[in-house]
Amino acid sequence: MKHITKPTLLVDEQKVRKNIQKMVTKAAGNSAMLRPHFKTHQSADIAEWFRDAGIDRATVSSVDMARYFADAGWKDLTIAFPYNQLEYEEINKLAQKISLNVTIVSKEALVHLNKYVDAPLGYFIKVDVGTHRTGIDPSDPDLIRTLAKSKNGDHQLKGLLAHAGHSYRPITQKEAQEVFNVAMEKLNAVKAIIGDDDLLISYGDTPTCSLLEFLPGVGELRSGNFTFYDAIQHHFGSCELDNIAVCMACPVVAQHPERGETIVYGGGVHFSKDYFEENGKKVFGRVVRLKESGWETIPIGYVARLSQEHGIVVLDDPSATPLHLGDLVGILPIHSCLTADLQGYYVSLAGKRINKINKAAL
Amino acid sequence: MKHITKPTLLVDEQKVRKNIQKMVTKAAGNSAMLRPHFKTHQSADIAEWFRDAGIDRATVSSVDMARYFADAGWKDLTIAFPYNQLEYEEINKLAQKISLNVTIVSKEALVHLNKYVDAPLGYFIKVDVGTHRTGIDPSDPDLIRTLAKSKNGDHQLKGLLAHAGHSYRPITQKEAQEVFNVAMEKLNAVKAIIGDDDLLISYGDTPTCSLLEFLPGVGELRSGNFTFYDAIQHHFGSCELDNIAVCMACPVVAQHPERGETIVYGGGVHFSKDYFEENGKKVFGRVVRLKESGWETIPIGYVARLSQEHGIVVLDDPSATPLHLGDLVGILPIHSCLTADLQGYYVSLAGKRINKINKAAL
Repeated sequence: MKHITKPTLLVDEQKVRKNIQKMVTKAAGNSAMLRPHFKTHQSADIAEWFRDAGIDRATVSSVDMARYFADAGWKDLTIAFPYNQLEYEEINKLAQKISLNVTIVSKEALVHLNKYVDAPLGYFIKVDVGTHRTGIDPSDPDLIRTLAKSKNGDHQLKGLLAHAGHSYRPITQKEAQEVFNVAMEKLNAVKAIIGDDDLLISYGDTPTCSLLEFLPGVGELRSGNFTFYDAIQHHFGSCELDNIAVCMACPVVAQHPERGETIVYGGGVHFSKDYFEENGKKVFGRVVRLKESGWETIPIGYVARLSQEHGIVVLDDPSATPLHLGDLVGILPIHSCLTADLQGYYVSLAGKRINKINKAAL
Repeated sequence: MKHITKPTLLVDEQKVRKNIQKMVTKAAGNSAMLRPHFKTHQSADIAEWFRDAGIDRATVSSVDMARYFADAGWKDLTIAFPYNQLEYEEINKLAQKISLNVTIVSKEALVHLNKYVDAPLGYFIKVDVGTHRTGIDPSDPDLIRTLAKSKNGDHQLKGLLAHAGHSYRPITQKEAQEVFNVAMEKLNAVKAIIGDDDLLISYGDTPTCSLLEFLPGVGELRSGNFTFYDAIQHHFGSCELDNIAVCMACPVVAQHPERGETIVYGGGVHFSKDYFEENGKKVFGRVVRLKESGWETIPIGYVARLSQEHGIVVLDDPSATPLHLGDLVGILPIHSCLTADLQGYYVSLAGKRINKINKAAL
């Protein structure tokens, strides 16, 4: 870690590959395809690790991200975000080059897509399975039938897309099973209305896809966070601490033993400001010790507050695990997708730079 | 706005210049220098608007940011973040090229600076005036005397640096005055211990610097957020809505009238996840209508939730200010510093790209 002088997001390639392999195996065991969400890593370099595991399709959350991965050789992408009609020209261009799927959540959006996008593409109907963020009401048969019949012969209904975002909480396997059962009931009802038993069901959230072994009826797994996992997924119960594959190396810049706090260089612009509450305290990340290569698994403290560049760390037992000015300490990010989004690049445990989307180039 | 198809942070140059001019006038009225914090905009282009107002020095929050602005021709910079000894080589290089100040919060840090950094530079002692994030205890005379006497003749104590972060709350002018009075009492006590009446006091927070006309004893104003202001500063009482100089143009991608929600393209990766609470509700941004050029001042709703790319908007009166799929709507960011940090660039009201730090190049 001698080359590191400032907040640097380390990626443990072996842990990522293990996380990928586990989800590949789970998908195969369910006779489902894996179409991993690349919004978590946003990196053409890391995408290759999926390719090594036999994956040739992916999910993205923006047209920009689709173009970036298409440029990196990905030929089959789903934009799992409501069709943004203002970007129809970009979508049309992309759909001429690769096999592209978009997400439809209203009649108006489908009408626009059919009218303005000529290139052949697939579309998924997003169904609200209980999260109430967006997606169609599964109990509206007229809307469902209308959306299932595209008036443009080059646009094919590929399936139903669901994101059970309401599973993002401390959740037992039994509760995850209930969320899944209710979601599948809704999705199967929509399938019945459409009258196509072979319609693909694309299912996405990391807690359910991590906790459940059997996902009957699901044709495609679309989760992404499992690539890295993070402190909040561990808090939810979706992963073990040892599965977390990214860790921010942060320099210690000040000590305040009088109030049991250590200040690290690493703040909201490095981590984002997500948190969870535990025993009445906000937790913005878990603190671990760094090793010669990588980091220790067992936390020695947590991040109690963040400002723009400062992280305020509280150690469980400062005398047992003292920190000193100029030390590097590891922080398991609270929400790896948002943390990764904030980086210009990652660094591997071998000190190699791992590239990702450059926002200045979008 | 016809060129905009995705979340785009608009900057109203005239509003920024007005905000700058107001703070320049306030500094002059207090016989203080203005050393604005550039962490808010992180843009060499916007920095030129400060230069046009006669400003030739600035504050930054990282060594990377110092190098970026040094490359853009800024010759006098203070890094208002605790000296990070791991970056001493970069600091040494920079101090050979420009007039650089660093921030010291401990004896150990000063010892390291003196030992490893040869180039001449200035240093500020950061004093904790009540925020308890970092900074030295103003009632520790031994430490203060030690820090005031650098053993390296090329390193000069420039002054005391304070950030009253505890003013970042809904605050009246009277309360801001109290925060300021207490802070100045502490700072003057430190000055007395050092025994140098001419020692510069550098004072920073935007609420105090915005609300108070008179800042006696302050030699340097260091605030930054006033450049753009934002929804949270308006909530605190630091600015009028009309002073907010950035606004995210967001496409409307879904409507859920059954629960009074509109979904826009614009989420945590565009805004960051800061919020404030108002009437028991979390507010992640204020919604305004966009105009031919710029945006209307009076909000028509607020952002109730954010996920990675989705913003969930609640309108005050949807029938009075209806939104339609494909509309662009404006969102006044909750915290402009963090929102700006997330962008690859800004766009001016004339549609011109405004460049900023490229994280991939750091």
